[in-house]
Amino acid sequence: MRILVVGSEGTVGQAAIFDLRKRHEIVSAGRNSGQHRVDVMDEASVAALFKACGAIDAVIVTTGHGHFGPVAEMTPSQYRKGIDDKLMGQINVALTAIRHVGDGGSITLTSGVTNRDHIRSGANAASVNGAIDEFVRAAAIEMPRDLRINSVSPGLLEASVKKYEGFFPGHAPVPAERVGLAYTKAVEGALNGQVIKVD
Amino acid sequence: MRILVVGSEGTVGQAAIFDLRKRHEIVSAGRNSGQHRVDVMDEASVAALFKACGAIDAVIVTTGHGHFGPVAEMTPSQYRKGIDDKLMGQINVALTAIRHVGDGGSITLTSGVTNRDHIRSGANAASVNGAIDEFVRAAAIEMPRDLRINSVSPGLLEASVKKYEGFFPGHAPVPAERVGLAYTKAVEGALNGQVIKVD
Repeated sequence: MRILVVGSEGTVGQAAIFDLRKRHEIVSAGRNSGQHRVDVMDEASVAALFKACGAIDAVIVTTGHGHFGPVAEMTPSQYRKGIDDKLMGQINVALTAIRHVGDGGSITLTSGVTNRDHIRSGANAASVNGAIDEFVRAAAIEMPRDLRINSVSPGLLEASVKKYEGFFPGHAPVPAERVGLAYTKAVEGALNGQVIKVD
Repeated sequence: MRILVVGSEGTVGQAAIFDLRKRHEIVSAGRNSGQHRVDVMDEASVAALFKACGAIDAVIVTTGHGHFGPVAEMTPSQYRKGIDDKLMGQINVALTAIRHVGDGGSITLTSGVTNRDHIRSGANAASVNGAIDEFVRAAAIEMPRDLRINSVSPGLLEASVKKYEGFFPGHAPVPAERVGLAYTKAVEGALNGQVIKVD
């Protein structure tokens, strides 16, 4: 398969292709790296990406970050930043992908553990991940051309433990290899409308 | 109790106060009606509302609509409209309410059935409702001053059957009285971080 991975150079992006790259052609894209440059927040940039890539059998998106901070101090602007960066970026790619991915192909988004194992300062991230997971579940029942759509919801990655120090007390970090298998399941399997958890 | 109801003149707003108004003082607010006018999309307008209302023991928000339309034809702009209108409006009120509601008070948001009983053309609404429900679940664990936060997730209201004709095949409409009881449970009960379903 020819798999477009948006955010391929990030921590989750690298985990996502850990296994898939052994058997498939990875077309990499990112804001500052990869074969193709894309601003996922910009509809025109996303459309140009798909045009530049040619035929694609599967799309994986791993981009974006929620806002981390105490809910009692959170401003609407901070909340919106998480929505814009992670949710709208992934949705921009997903909605464009529905028009461009080959018949029977798949779209895989990336949510995360914060909406199923709550942490302090995680209300925005939980909300963003909930929006991604529920989009996938709802969109799945009306996907055209035998397309499938799923999300991978990884726990705290081993490689991210230092970055998020103190935010995830008691969370068992997950190895990149296991996260990679979840994306393999989404792309090579037959699941549709599923949130594939990695804990 | 003194309960601020934002969106009080809407179908869900009227249902929300069906029972509570018998025992409490309802302070009504809305875009075009109610004792106070507010644009929930505008932070400054929401802040002004709370200033104008004085002491409040509970806040209920029932405003906003998702975008309804086939996911294969949905544009990012249409998706964003649902995010802006329903999600950001409710979050604006919720984040402001955390600073203004009296100690031990409650905040009740409104999601809906589309993220737990999927319908065609409902991917945006499901996503928006998922974001609201997951915000509530995550925010609940770190609410200050013994505040509580919940969402009410009503099924298709009897009064909305005509408006949404064809969108909800097989959904049993719910009477306003039962929706009202869910808001009573959220306000008068002790629940925190719950999605109170009405089916």
